[in-house]
Amino acid sequence: MSEQSITPRSVDYSRWYLDVIREAELADYGPVRGTMVIRPYGYAIWENIQRSLDQRFKQTGHVNAYFPLFIPYSFLQKEKEHIEGFSPELALVTIGGGKELEEPLVVRPTSETIINYMFAQWIKSYRDLPLLINQWANVVRWELRTRPFLRTLEFLWQEGHTAHATYEEAEEEALRMIGVYRDFAENEGAVPVIVGRKSRLETFAGALHTYTMEAMMGDKRALQAGTSHHLGQNFAKAFEIRYLDENNELQYVWQTSWGLSTRFIGAIIMVHGDDKGLRLPPRLAPIQAVIVPIWRKEDDKGVVLEAVEQVRCLLADAGIRVEADLREQRTPGWKFNFWEMKGVPVRVEIGPRDVESGTVVLARRDLPGKEGKVTGVPVEQAVARIRQLLDEIQASLLEQARAFRDANIHDVSSYEELREVIATGGWARGWWAGSDEDELRVKEETGATIRCFPLDQPEGPGTCLMTGQKAERIAIFAKAY
Amino acid sequence: MSEQSITPRSVDYSRWYLDVIREAELADYGPVRGTMVIRPYGYAIWENIQRSLDQRFKQTGHVNAYFPLFIPYSFLQKEKEHIEGFSPELALVTIGGGKELEEPLVVRPTSETIINYMFAQWIKSYRDLPLLINQWANVVRWELRTRPFLRTLEFLWQEGHTAHATYEEAEEEALRMIGVYRDFAENEGAVPVIVGRKSRLETFAGALHTYTMEAMMGDKRALQAGTSHHLGQNFAKAFEIRYLDENNELQYVWQTSWGLSTRFIGAIIMVHGDDKGLRLPPRLAPIQAVIVPIWRKEDDKGVVLEAVEQVRCLLADAGIRVEADLREQRTPGWKFNFWEMKGVPVRVEIGPRDVESGTVVLARRDLPGKEGKVTGVPVEQAVARIRQLLDEIQASLLEQARAFRDANIHDVSSYEELREVIATGGWARGWWAGSDEDELRVKEETGATIRCFPLDQPEGPGTCLMTGQKAERIAIFAKAY
Repeated sequence: MSEQSITPRSVDYSRWYLDVIREAELADYGPVRGTMVIRPYGYAIWENIQRSLDQRFKQTGHVNAYFPLFIPYSFLQKEKEHIEGFSPELALVTIGGGKELEEPLVVRPTSETIINYMFAQWIKSYRDLPLLINQWANVVRWELRTRPFLRTLEFLWQEGHTAHATYEEAEEEALRMIGVYRDFAENEGAVPVIVGRKSRLETFAGALHTYTMEAMMGDKRALQAGTSHHLGQNFAKAFEIRYLDENNELQYVWQTSWGLSTRFIGAIIMVHGDDKGLRLPPRLAPIQAVIVPIWRKEDDKGVVLEAVEQVRCLLADAGIRVEADLREQRTPGWKFNFWEMKGVPVRVEIGPRDVESGTVVLARRDLPGKEGKVTGVPVEQAVARIRQLLDEIQASLLEQARAFRDANIHDVSSYEELREVIATGGWARGWWAGSDEDELRVKEETGATIRCFPLDQPEGPGTCLMTGQKAERIAIFAKAY
Repeated sequence: MSEQSITPRSVDYSRWYLDVIREAELADYGPVRGTMVIRPYGYAIWENIQRSLDQRFKQTGHVNAYFPLFIPYSFLQKEKEHIEGFSPELALVTIGGGKELEEPLVVRPTSETIINYMFAQWIKSYRDLPLLINQWANVVRWELRTRPFLRTLEFLWQEGHTAHATYEEAEEEALRMIGVYRDFAENEGAVPVIVGRKSRLETFAGALHTYTMEAMMGDKRALQAGTSHHLGQNFAKAFEIRYLDENNELQYVWQTSWGLSTRFIGAIIMVHGDDKGLRLPPRLAPIQAVIVPIWRKEDDKGVVLEAVEQVRCLLADAGIRVEADLREQRTPGWKFNFWEMKGVPVRVEIGPRDVESGTVVLARRDLPGKEGKVTGVPVEQAVARIRQLLDEIQASLLEQARAFRDANIHDVSSYEELREVIATGGWARGWWAGSDEDELRVKEETGATIRCFPLDQPEGPGTCLMTGQKAERIAIFAKAY
């Protein structure tokens, strides 16, 4: 890490983002254009995301399974909209074991088709429903404009796939899972989100409708941070997934799918990061507290290191993810900057005077300078105080992000106002009853898209900002990643 | 599940294996030849394997990361033996985003090349060593003769990749990790293994030498259940991975890689299974105890189900993985068979008389009939007794497997004896100083290969069973999966 190695956000937000990823060693570029290596520090965030989500999926009755990476090309063609949506993004295997294949294999861009091919074999009776399956996997989409975490040729995600007896049950599931995502995003990631329904143009290829959660990044762009689709019976009809109901009649199932990916790490970086680097929400931080020993005289080294090891054990035993930075070739000041850049929520400083008084100094990543520093914390209170600090930081990051977002969402009642808001970099919220063409016009002229029709709607009806006609719903417009 | 749906092992071991996988719903065939769907019950075993191994990797200082699926074809050519070993098994992506690619991409068969390409960028100084990285991933090998779990076109595994300053440190790491595998296999999987070194012919393509752990299946064939390679400087030289040592001189690193895959699930099936189906080691079993309610009169149903729910909560709260089988369309007898087939270690029976006396009946999967049954266990002692039973079953499965294996390893001192032992289906152990040609002759004439030269060697030297010359090591020969 060098001084000034991170471009200030105000100078170039995009460079800031890439600088943080490089300096914090979250990811690196792979040798194939558009691919990414997730480095250990970045992957440790993903492991915490996985743990949090997986627990929630199991609590809501889902089980994990694994389906093959390779899908026969013909499968994707079975659902018309699905193949139209994914066709330009496919990677195809045409040679296997030295021989040209008769039918090319698609490297999965998503697994609806292959999973539903299996569901058709597994589902026979209403007793087999609901079928609630999740998969942790890598997927490939041949994207042309890529950016680490946000859009890469290959990414990691989970994809849930479920089958139900009725429309209502599938709808309930689709809503339940976007709710699980929101709970995860806000309570683990400290990322406030707006949950809503996508416009028809933005709906997943093959779905009846799509729910999304949208988060505001530090540059006020929107990021789609997780989606949940009600697939209706589209795939059931394409793959003949039918069950015998209680009256012994054959019925097509109703389905959902939902996914959240390594893109969420991009959200964490951009929602919380500042000019010093990362700020990680304590619940997902690989390291929650870092201990920096401080000594000048060689005489002090022994007692300081002893105290550091004692406190490290104390914290580790209490389940706090802790690390001690014992590098001798670095000064304490350098280490302070380093760990701030890495976004570690709490720093513990221990010097000779702290050892003498049996205390430690605690510093918060989210409050700069003296404001975030507590001195003279007795060692025996360290665990409790740090736990409390971690909770406070978790809450404070969410609050800061929420305040920033809310200050940058503007109600608009005309297209003129919408253009102004988008031009100055905020989100525009207004009544909308426009056509697909109107929506495309907004996109072309402003760069903004309808991010969603929030589930939380004001009392209506209102007047459409574009057409002046009666509108039943408000929409949120923003430029997006 | 139908009666007699599992072929007895003595009739056709191979059909028995496939029957168990199908009936226990561990896996299913994917639509592409040679691919496999890991169903929830099978995947839950894999999740337990992952948890056990991942914990051990972290305790030994390793961190996880993720490297891309796609590797430029030219990378594989950089290490001569490596490309020779893997070339016939490659799947190639030649079309991406609708366009023919300039260079085909290899779907990783293993990740040495791409990981070492990155290591070359990350390793600069002796301070960056050792670099200890693990990856959980899917890999693809275009196998022609496939069998679920044992050999599939795509499989899941972990692959460790490390870089060290010296030969000795790399050697220590390679041995440490085969030791971690052994500890896992024996203590979690109850699968006894023999750890040894592979012959030159069986060494990993590109390694100096390979350590393996070999397990004996129920049909006395050997299964290579995990390997650890000392790669020497072969990849370091191919990818120019050099570091500045403490004297400021450039040195090539020394490396290891090691892997264990979903193949281990095949080992669990074949080491422990019997004619009734699976027998799962408690530490890896997705369900450790299943509760079957028993009642005849509708009057009894309420109290029995209440007691079942009470016991279920008790066990779940104690951290025992428990399920209650409340299906009404199935008889208790059917459920007993079903859960025995699924390999659940402990069955808990609760009927009206048990409710009256406040007790439960416990039955062990590993001991058939009355011998494995305890009646009148007070509910308040259920947790402690089940915990104890799980420990006993875990130990007993290991002991049974070890006794079976040891009874089927035969010391041989001539090629004639070796042929006899292999022909009757055991493992042959004898002194060996033969050449590669001798080894190939054994393979051709008997179907057996050198599984390993065990690390644990008797005092020597001895006389080579093939050449009659002085031999420094004993080898184990067996037919293998």
